[in-house]
Amino acid sequence: MSLITVGTMAFDSIETPFGKVDKIVGGSATYVAYAASNFTTPVKQISIVGYDFPEEEMNELKRRGVELEGVEIVPDKKSFFWSGKYHIDMNSRDTLITDLNVLADFNPTVPESYQGAEFLMLGNLSPNIQLSVINQLKQRPKLIVMDTMNFWMDIALDDLKQVLKKVDVLLVNDGEARQLSGEVSLVKAAKCILQMGPKFLIIKKGEHGALLFHENNVFFAPALPLEEVFDPTGAGDTFAGGFIGYLAKTKDISFENMKTAIIVGSALASFCVEKFGPDRLKEINKADIDERISEFVRLVNFEIDLV
Amino acid sequence: MSLITVGTMAFDSIETPFGKVDKIVGGSATYVAYAASNFTTPVKQISIVGYDFPEEEMNELKRRGVELEGVEIVPDKKSFFWSGKYHIDMNSRDTLITDLNVLADFNPTVPESYQGAEFLMLGNLSPNIQLSVINQLKQRPKLIVMDTMNFWMDIALDDLKQVLKKVDVLLVNDGEARQLSGEVSLVKAAKCILQMGPKFLIIKKGEHGALLFHENNVFFAPALPLEEVFDPTGAGDTFAGGFIGYLAKTKDISFENMKTAIIVGSALASFCVEKFGPDRLKEINKADIDERISEFVRLVNFEIDLV
Repeated sequence: MSLITVGTMAFDSIETPFGKVDKIVGGSATYVAYAASNFTTPVKQISIVGYDFPEEEMNELKRRGVELEGVEIVPDKKSFFWSGKYHIDMNSRDTLITDLNVLADFNPTVPESYQGAEFLMLGNLSPNIQLSVINQLKQRPKLIVMDTMNFWMDIALDDLKQVLKKVDVLLVNDGEARQLSGEVSLVKAAKCILQMGPKFLIIKKGEHGALLFHENNVFFAPALPLEEVFDPTGAGDTFAGGFIGYLAKTKDISFENMKTAIIVGSALASFCVEKFGPDRLKEINKADIDERISEFVRLVNFEIDLV
Repeated sequence: MSLITVGTMAFDSIETPFGKVDKIVGGSATYVAYAASNFTTPVKQISIVGYDFPEEEMNELKRRGVELEGVEIVPDKKSFFWSGKYHIDMNSRDTLITDLNVLADFNPTVPESYQGAEFLMLGNLSPNIQLSVINQLKQRPKLIVMDTMNFWMDIALDDLKQVLKKVDVLLVNDGEARQLSGEVSLVKAAKCILQMGPKFLIIKKGEHGALLFHENNVFFAPALPLEEVFDPTGAGDTFAGGFIGYLAKTKDISFENMKTAIIVGSALASFCVEKFGPDRLKEINKADIDERISEFVRLVNFEIDLV
């Protein structure tokens, strides 16, 4: 049972109301790998970095069971760089700098050794790249999960819709679900998007939790109410990594098991935001994750005899 | 086991993206009474209306077990009137008209027959009026629940803080919790507000559900994802009515039972928004409420073996 994850490995400079960091490690595939490797290994990474991406980060990922054969290292270019500043409520942010660097040339080749993987996580990237990875796989994975963002809806909607036809689970936030469907109501938006290809839709609402839609069923997972959200960067990717990692571990892609996977993803994301970058994810162990999941159970559990 | 509810009985004119109605029945005590009377009677109403408040509405309330001895009818003045317009997302609204009319003279006297009630719901009103009702009760109710709003924080904060010292449960929305505490984080806001008097705090987040805080415990109840929110007017009061009505019915004011009461309140509120005004609340029966509560169970229930 193995998992391929495709996405960025990058540097971020982040300013939040709680502080500021320059050029720390980030990128969607980095967060997915740190989260998913708690549940399943190997995580077969597909990404691209420049000469400047730290070797110690690569070694740490390898130590956790992340295979890096699919990570291209470009010797004469810099890694992708993003810089952003969060507003006081942490729910919105301004992008200050986007330096594509190596990402401008990203045209991944799936290594032969990655063939046969049963789970595929398509991180937020150009739909063309996502489609290319799907098409290179000789055997269709058991489950394909796709992340995307409003940027691709703005500039590459037709390509995006092609990818949507080929995936099982789509992950978007509430604003993106509304943009993609043209519906204000999230229930209507979900019905519309489930006609576009994916059998499952997860709408992430940040501090307001996440909704899972499948056929006529809906499941809601809250976000843990936290005293301080230190840095939300990577929380969505960490959620995705926990979600697909748990599914790969349990080998069960039913709606029922996806509910649990969403709680696991939410638990991982709640750690991610406690420190800058992926730092907190590197500290936690199985007992920490179990304790956090128990907090989710306490948060939503109630007894009821019908009235 | 009886319940006193204090609040407005009024007329509303409402415009939403789905339509417009002129001068329909509204008011916080009206919604509380329609919701609570599903669970407990008599509901002992304290309010004030003008000559124009419809007799058929009074009769309908009486039929449901709502006592109106505490509702003053002013023969030469009009009832309180509010007019508002909702924005496209239905989460925010503009007040267009507020005609206090009879409400300007509201100085309620608690009828002798209301004495001894074990539950008291203080709807959103001037803190002075709320305090006056508490002080008129010869025996302190077992549970006092208080609603309020940012308006009173702006113009009568000291009075509001006096009432807070005398109540058990405070109901506010997320913006109001932040204003009252001066904290952005809702967890920090809750800790701060629980120092002001109430032992329980409910923070309503509209379509994003509600949080219940008590000591170091927190419980989260989602709102039901709806295809259409037709008219949110009265949803908060309906929630409050369902909440305190269920507590009065079950005679159990523990944290555990309050979790269930919040789910019941959320279920009632999800009906309220389906039509203009309290119309939908007049149609539903016990079976409808049970079915809706079951939907909440399905919405949040998940199975987990720790990872």
